[in-house]
Amino acid sequence: MTYAISYDDILDAARQIEGVAVRTPLLELPALNERVGGRVFLKPENLQRVGAFKFRGAYNRLSRLSAAEKALGVVAFSSGNHAQGIAHAAQILGIRATIVMPSDAPELKLANTRAYGAEVILYDRYNEDREAVAARVVGDSGATVVPPYNDPFIMAGQGTVGLEIAQDLDAMGIVPDQALINCGGGGLCSGAYLALYEHFPSLDGYVVEPAAFDDVTRSLVSGEIETVDFGARSVCDALLTPSAGLLTFPIMQGLGLKGLSVSDDEALDAVGYAAKSLKLVAEPGGAAALAALLSGKIDGKAKNTIVVISGGNIEPAMLQQCLARESASK
Amino acid sequence: MTYAISYDDILDAARQIEGVAVRTPLLELPALNERVGGRVFLKPENLQRVGAFKFRGAYNRLSRLSAAEKALGVVAFSSGNHAQGIAHAAQILGIRATIVMPSDAPELKLANTRAYGAEVILYDRYNEDREAVAARVVGDSGATVVPPYNDPFIMAGQGTVGLEIAQDLDAMGIVPDQALINCGGGGLCSGAYLALYEHFPSLDGYVVEPAAFDDVTRSLVSGEIETVDFGARSVCDALLTPSAGLLTFPIMQGLGLKGLSVSDDEALDAVGYAAKSLKLVAEPGGAAALAALLSGKIDGKAKNTIVVISGGNIEPAMLQQCLARESASK
Repeated sequence: MTYAISYDDILDAARQIEGVAVRTPLLELPALNERVGGRVFLKPENLQRVGAFKFRGAYNRLSRLSAAEKALGVVAFSSGNHAQGIAHAAQILGIRATIVMPSDAPELKLANTRAYGAEVILYDRYNEDREAVAARVVGDSGATVVPPYNDPFIMAGQGTVGLEIAQDLDAMGIVPDQALINCGGGGLCSGAYLALYEHFPSLDGYVVEPAAFDDVTRSLVSGEIETVDFGARSVCDALLTPSAGLLTFPIMQGLGLKGLSVSDDEALDAVGYAAKSLKLVAEPGGAAALAALLSGKIDGKAKNTIVVISGGNIEPAMLQQCLARESASK
Repeated sequence: MTYAISYDDILDAARQIEGVAVRTPLLELPALNERVGGRVFLKPENLQRVGAFKFRGAYNRLSRLSAAEKALGVVAFSSGNHAQGIAHAAQILGIRATIVMPSDAPELKLANTRAYGAEVILYDRYNEDREAVAARVVGDSGATVVPPYNDPFIMAGQGTVGLEIAQDLDAMGIVPDQALINCGGGGLCSGAYLALYEHFPSLDGYVVEPAAFDDVTRSLVSGEIETVDFGARSVCDALLTPSAGLLTFPIMQGLGLKGLSVSDDEALDAVGYAAKSLKLVAEPGGAAALAALLSGKIDGKAKNTIVVISGGNIEPAMLQQCLARESASK
């Protein structure tokens, strides 16, 4: 079957975002290697514009709009990082942005989205359907609705995360054994793994989800797009999507990815560990893949493991809590 | 006059530490550029082994010891980061290390130094002379005393920080206008600036100190090695040295460096800003140079500015305080 995007689309996205998005480094930190007993290659997308990989797809998508589409503005619905990505990309491109956000989104993400010049409209995450709200907001304004993951340009943009990792590993002459990437709707995993498998066909690729939102993990087993329980909760606010996308899932399935899930406690411990031992600020959803490795959900001994830290937009109060966790110590 | 080290010594140190020390990336983060109104190139030595640049000099020094010297062990005196650097380098090289540390050193640094396998001996920072204590500890054991900065191999090792920055900027075709580097005894500043001026002779180089420990700033004005007031205090525990070294000062003076100083409040604000907006964990003494830029002590508008974040070993409780500071917000 044909996927929604190809490796060439990711190369094209890389050219589109060059000089605008940050080309984040690939970090190998001895403290983490020693803890894991293998080599770990960290892609710190918390250092990306807006503090998360989401800027890549947002900029790739918005910069492709026609002049007429740009003039009518864009609408996005997001729990936070996609909101910031769209708001900031729109700001850079001079496009008017309206963002529909859940009323319980982290205050920091709400404030940042507004700071990028977007108009924010709040809705009730558990009692209102965000796409219906978005449709109501859009009305007959002609604005383009930009989905958070189920869009080829978004997926190709996020794919540049995998492309950069592959290029950096190639330059070092290193072949990775396995990779761990956080998964919400699959925009990052579908794009990044498409690029990674192009370079490393024998890679073992894992999507990492919060335990209460392990729909992709189950979907990869059943072969059908599964959904999460209504009312599920997790501290990993960046990964709270009800199901994978119709465009993202076939890629994740076709590449033969497998799923892993982590508890909220494991994610919070990983945030504390990252700050104390790696000197990097991650948000819980951004640290899920790291949590899978630290908690032993996957063994990194004597292996080359890729871990993507997908975002760092954590409330100061929550980071303070993570720092205080005993179990987050070295 | 002849300096204690040359550019060639730094190239030699770079070969010596290659594959052991982390070659930290040079980061350009849009959030910081936009705040400053210019381009800022951050060297995050908080990502270095032991969480500070100190590992570079320590490994360069210890790896040069003869087999006979290695067998007799090493002794170091340090408020924390040098201690960790020597302890970890000794651990890697299989050398027995004894570290004399002030009893009020951060608990984290004491614990980490012990975790690297060193024996820690405590002394009273304000009522005992640490060199006398070290001499007593050494006795006739034959152990080599490794000074924190006044040593050619230490200085050349720290100089690799500047060499890597220069190499990365050269590769990007960028000529820096100015640089800000934290200064205690001058090991980092003398070495790193020697490398930077070799590549960029028209650079404006600044040493950045805590206001109560601005001895190098005053020394650069008077032309003599000045000292700090007995009993001076600062939250920047990594920079609490009484005076520059006899080997480090002539280099800082000869290169025409200038001095800047920051208050404890400015350093703590910079730590909060780094965690919230840059997603990097810095310690107060490691963030002094960043503080000088953020507080407007030096203008970065329309300039290319190098900033070294020299360390990230901050107590979780102090990081929590920095996160809570209103003035550290964006």
